[in-house]
Formats: sequence, C-alpha cells, structure tokens
Amino acid sequence: MSSGFFYTEEQTPNLRYSCKINKTLHTETTPFQELAMIDTVQWGRMLVLDNMVMTTIKDEFVYHEMISHVALNTHPNPKKVMIIGGGDGGAIREAVKHEKVEKAVLCEIDGRVIETSKEYLPEIASALFGHPKVEVLVADGVKHIEENEGEYDVIMVDSTEPVGPAEGLFAADFYKAVYRALKPDGIMVAQTESPFVNAELISRVFKDIKGIFPITKLYLASIPTYPSGLWSFTIASKVYDPEAVDVSTIPERDTKYYTPALHKAVFSLPKFVQDLLK
Amino acid sequence: MSSGFFYTEEQTPNLRYSCKINKTLHTETTPFQELAMIDTVQWGRMLVLDNMVMTTIKDEFVYHEMISHVALNTHPNPKKVMIIGGGDGGAIREAVKHEKVEKAVLCEIDGRVIETSKEYLPEIASALFGHPKVEVLVADGVKHIEENEGEYDVIMVDSTEPVGPAEGLFAADFYKAVYRALKPDGIMVAQTESPFVNAELISRVFKDIKGIFPITKLYLASIPTYPSGLWSFTIASKVYDPEAVDVSTIPERDTKYYTPALHKAVFSLPKFVQDLLK
Repeated sequence: MSSGFFYTEEQTPNLRYSCKINKTLHTETTPFQELAMIDTVQWGRMLVLDNMVMTTIKDEFVYHEMISHVALNTHPNPKKVMIIGGGDGGAIREAVKHEKVEKAVLCEIDGRVIETSKEYLPEIASALFGHPKVEVLVADGVKHIEENEGEYDVIMVDSTEPVGPAEGLFAADFYKAVYRALKPDGIMVAQTESPFVNAELISRVFKDIKGIFPITKLYLASIPTYPSGLWSFTIASKVYDPEAVDVSTIPERDTKYYTPALHKAVFSLPKFVQDLLK
Repeated sequence: MSSGFFYTEEQTPNLRYSCKINKTLHTETTPFQELAMIDTVQWGRMLVLDNMVMTTIKDEFVYHEMISHVALNTHPNPKKVMIIGGGDGGAIREAVKHEKVEKAVLCEIDGRVIETSKEYLPEIASALFGHPKVEVLVADGVKHIEENEGEYDVIMVDSTEPVGPAEGLFAADFYKAVYRALKPDGIMVAQTESPFVNAELISRVFKDIKGIFPITKLYLASIPTYPSGLWSFTIASKVYDPEAVDVSTIPERDTKYYTPALHKAVFSLPKFVQDLLK
C-alpha cells in the first residue's frame, strides 16, 4: 500500500473511508461542531464536520447542482429562495444561476462554516462574497422558518447528518413549518441520506413529508465521497410535479452533473429504493 | 471509532475503503491471482481478488442485474449467451431468468473462483450447481471468443479490473473478436469501471468499441462496494438500440435494482460522463 497520512471517516461503525492528505489546513471546535479543512490528494480540499465529509472541491458539483436545479426548474417562477444550512455556499451559488431568482437567503446556524468556507473553499463559497441576490443569516433555520409564513417559493434543506445540530431538520414538525413558510405553490427539497446505509431514515422521512405535501417524490444522485456513493433527495411540492416539467423548455446552464434529461431520469428509482417508499 | 478487525482495500493510491470483519473464511493463491473470502459486518460475505472487492452478498444484485438485463431485454430473442469471466455465477444466474435464453455459457479462466464461490457464496453461484441451461468452461475467454465466430446472441464481459488476468479484456482487438463471435444481430455488454476514478479508461474503451459496433452506449449503476460507488457499463449492438426498446413489453422479473423504467433512465448520463464519450 502507498504510505503517507490519511484522514479516516467512520461512515458506519463497520465502514471506514480514508483519503490521503497533502495537508490539514485548519481545525477548530465551533460552538456547534468540530470543523476541519483538509487538503486531500484524491478530492482536493475537503470540509469535514463532526468527522463526516461535507463537501470536496472535486465532487461538490453533484450535491450542489442536484439539491438546487431540480426544484428550481420545477417551479415556474422561483423568485424567493431559502437555503437552510448550506454554509459552504455551494447550493446558493447554483440557486443564483437562475434568472428568475430575485433573492436567495442562506440561514446557517454556524457562522464558522461560512467564514472558513470563504477562506478555504472560495470556488464553492463564491456567492457569499457580496452577491446582489444573496442574503446571509447566521441563525437557527428552524426558528427562521417558523417566523416566516408564506414567504418562500423554494426552500432547500441542505443539512448535515441527522445527529448534532441538524437533528431537528429531519423531524415531522419541521417539515410542517417548511410547508407553512412556503407560498401556496411552493416547493421544498431536502437531502435525505443514502438508500444503502440509511434505509430506515429515508422510509420514515418520506412518510412524514408525504403526510404533509400533496406531491412528494424521491430522486437520486451519485456522490463519491458520501457513504455508499448513492444519495437521496426528497422533493415535496404544493402544486407543481417535478416529473411533469417540460424539460425541453429548461435553459442550458453551466452544470457538470445536472441536465434536463437527467431531471426526469433521476426519478426512475431502483426497485429496492421504490420499496423503501411504500 | 469502533474497534475490531478490518479488511482494507486500496481503491486508488489515495483512497482506502475498510470493512469490519466477522471472519476471514478463506485465502489462497490461485494460478492467476490472490483470492480471499471474507465475512464482513456491513456487506456480508465478500469475494476479493488481488485485493479488490469483486462482489458481496448484500450489494451483488446491482452489478449482476445491471450487466445482464439491459442487454437481454434489448435483444428480442437471446437464445445463446456467453459470459466471459463472472466466475462467481451472479451474471449467469440473472441470464437464465430469461425464458428465451436456451443456453448460457460461462467462460472463466480461474476455476478456483468458481469453486470457492460455490462453497462460500452459494446464493450468488446458484446457477452453477447443474442448471440445465448452463455450461461452465474453465478456459481463456479471449481464446474462446476467437474460436467461436457467429455463435452468440449476447456476450457479457464480466471482468475484473484492467490489470492482471483481465487486461486483455479491455483491448480493441478483443472487442473486434467479440464482434465476430456475435451473430449478425448480436449485443455485447462490458463492465467499464468508474467515471469518477477511471475516466481515461472509459474514454479510451468507448472510443475503441464505437469504432467497431454501429450502436455503442454507456449506462450507469450504483455499486456501493466499488470505488466511488458509481459504475459504468458499455453496451454495443449490431442492430438493436437499447434505448429504443418498448419497455412496456418487458416482463416483470424477480429483481431488486433493474426495472423497465430504469432500463431507459440509466442512459441519461450526468454531463461530466457525457463529456468522457466525446
């Protein structure tokens, strides 16, 4: 085996994922979590929170494009967008690529994620340096959602794992508050973990959201630095069906993963994933 | 971190993947490679060749269904099928689920893979215990292909990594021999590694195959125990277009990943994968 220093993530108690390190750039204990910025050989710079890989320079495009463009291309007029979490700035960078988005609000509980992302991951955080459409709040997303009824066209729940500061972002009461914070034709999208290693969570969350929104669907994307490499997003809508979009009308944008054809294809689920949603 | 014994795979010189072990069941040096059977906590029993994960009880369904059903549901009458490699028996188990398949021939160079799979992975090797449609050859697949012109309706190249015994299975001359071994309306499918970690190989192999077959396409599946979790298959056809199949006519079979809808969806590629094929 090749020698050198490795960062090791415990993906489950039975699985470890190790990346060779060029350099550990920064570590700190924020008021909310352990934060590390690591320069890896395979994936470039990497943000790690509570010992879990959040994003890397080389594969971040998958997560950030796929949490944002499916919902934003489903809503015909997404003027006002909220991102809960997402302090690295990747999701809001994608959101402001949409001409119809007039305002995108980021509500991140941990200001240190924002500051260190701007310092070490400026390619990802590019919309956080004073973009005219962007407003950044360092605040509790649950509270913000509860205090802003009927305000947003699209709400993205760009959370960490369902332990620690993000635990409340996987609760039925939170999804009810998101429903109320959306306009009458609003859309929510949330990252909902891996079908291979978090099957029970997906089943529970999908059932909860389906009990609140008229249209609830799950779609998948391949994220190599997340456990199992297969990741799910749950999209919930009051009016517009993400699968009913006329994809021929979607304008071409600067993406590396998302395409209009993929917008539909990602809803064709493997049989074992379909079975989780029954 | 949890303690215990772990099996560690070096996925690339910069990435390691470690699985907690219940027990190492068997190791041997065959005339062709290092072989290990390991009982892992996360994925159940695992076959390892030359320190690379080949298949596991819990995720084998993805690879074996996806290498076989796309081609077999594209060909209208796949009577005679060849599997090159695939000594664990998973691909041929799927092939004989097709009513129209009259004969499925497995040509595996390393008889010890077959024998140890029958002993330790009987769920995967189930078609190797005397199935009436199955013929097992312990022989060099390249030679077999060269000696059997115009013989097969579908040929599956179920190889290991493109180093060691399988190196020849990624060469342009081999794909030309496969073309000749197929009937005038035959179809080939080959596993062609990960777009995230083997981009150059995919580009080269796709170009080679596209120079030989009139219809060449790439599709993807999510295999959690393979590097990056995203895996490609290249399908090459003399007459039938896998995307032109009327999927409403595909009979329901006992699968956990493949569905008729997915048969089409898997050809909608992420932008960065499309770019590898240009």
